[in-house]
Amino acid sequence: MSKEALGRRIPVLEVFGPTVQGEGMVIGQKTMFVRTAGCDYSCSWCDSAFTWDGSGKQDIRMITASEVWEELRQVGGSTFSHVTLSGGNPALLPQLGELIDLLHAEGVKVALETQGSRWQDWFHRIDDLTLSPKPPSSGMTTDWDVLDEIVGKLRSEGRSYSLKVVIFDEADLRYATSVHHRYPGVTFYLQAGNDDVKEQDSSVLLRRLMDRYLWLVDTAMSSEELKDVRVLPQLHAWLWGNKRGV
Amino acid sequence: MSKEALGRRIPVLEVFGPTVQGEGMVIGQKTMFVRTAGCDYSCSWCDSAFTWDGSGKQDIRMITASEVWEELRQVGGSTFSHVTLSGGNPALLPQLGELIDLLHAEGVKVALETQGSRWQDWFHRIDDLTLSPKPPSSGMTTDWDVLDEIVGKLRSEGRSYSLKVVIFDEADLRYATSVHHRYPGVTFYLQAGNDDVKEQDSSVLLRRLMDRYLWLVDTAMSSEELKDVRVLPQLHAWLWGNKRGV
Repeated sequence: MSKEALGRRIPVLEVFGPTVQGEGMVIGQKTMFVRTAGCDYSCSWCDSAFTWDGSGKQDIRMITASEVWEELRQVGGSTFSHVTLSGGNPALLPQLGELIDLLHAEGVKVALETQGSRWQDWFHRIDDLTLSPKPPSSGMTTDWDVLDEIVGKLRSEGRSYSLKVVIFDEADLRYATSVHHRYPGVTFYLQAGNDDVKEQDSSVLLRRLMDRYLWLVDTAMSSEELKDVRVLPQLHAWLWGNKRGV
Repeated sequence: MSKEALGRRIPVLEVFGPTVQGEGMVIGQKTMFVRTAGCDYSCSWCDSAFTWDGSGKQDIRMITASEVWEELRQVGGSTFSHVTLSGGNPALLPQLGELIDLLHAEGVKVALETQGSRWQDWFHRIDDLTLSPKPPSSGMTTDWDVLDEIVGKLRSEGRSYSLKVVIFDEADLRYATSVHHRYPGVTFYLQAGNDDVKEQDSSVLLRRLMDRYLWLVDTAMSSEELKDVRVLPQLHAWLWGNKRGV
């Protein structure tokens, strides 16, 4: 295969669904998931570390946009009209533009979440776009120049998008507050983080996640700095625990 | 007091918050609630029957829009910029227009949910509007002419709004499917109903509500007729059970 042909292929780790989107701006949305491999970050609490830590390497398939669409059809039949591109960080992949156009041509809407560390021109064609910069507990450092530039490009096109910050502690909440104030008027989500991605007993995990969510709700409700915010859990983790592929 | 002055007053049952909106298009939103008295419906499973069955009658206060605003400030301080008008059916009250304008003047957004049985011109000024026609299990009958007219008016103004149907059983789901197809292109929510508004043990209720939600998710996910839908629980009932004022 030529280098060009290979470059158009997408590193796919998982195709699953339909299921409900468990978080953020389209929480509850019936959607299929396409999970791509590779990330420029390595968040300490990443719930999909197999996309970048080498442990899922043998499951990566380099496939074309058409092959992704065929697989979506095979797995989801005719039950869906919404696809979520997840990672990893799908924003590393310029070749996703072809898949997005193909999905649109099939009448399918496309959602994407990314940390906002890389720009792709196809961001303009995402129906439900979430920028989710990572707070201090992740161990990552936000490049504000890059994030400002991405937000600026989206704003100049009048594109609707949302911001989301995952919260584990007080320092994360201060970071989130600064993000909220830096980009005023953008729909802003606070999400209670899952601080135990290994727990296999889903009822134990549920109690823990609900407590963390209630803490975040209480804290955000009493804040005068966080007025126009939406505070959400990860619904899928409440329902299915740390299981993959749901 | 003159009849006109009295007519401008709002029958208020509760003012509480800030808390998270537990359902629908702005799930998770930090919001204050103003609950008005009176409903033209009497749904079998209503979780706020005290607004219309006479049991809350002694708590109704006839207050002006300014007094509602004062009370919101007293209860919520400077922590909020979003208010949800809830009922009963607030669409029975033409005088709410004054409150909506006052809230907007204070920089506060306004959400409303109504069954779509009555029109008010102030619907055009609601920021987050949900029409929630009631399925067969409610015991109510939808007046499709009225609902068509309301949807038509909203559409002609290019106003964004959403539809939501609460689901208790298969018949409700068939009803929801017909609503979804009658108004294509409108963001459509399926909500798992709470079939036990008396249960006081919140962990017993949680298990039950999660099971009902999972049933609804499974059913909706396998449906070819319900493609572009959002399936949500009542988050507040999961967290706080059947408690009022949260």
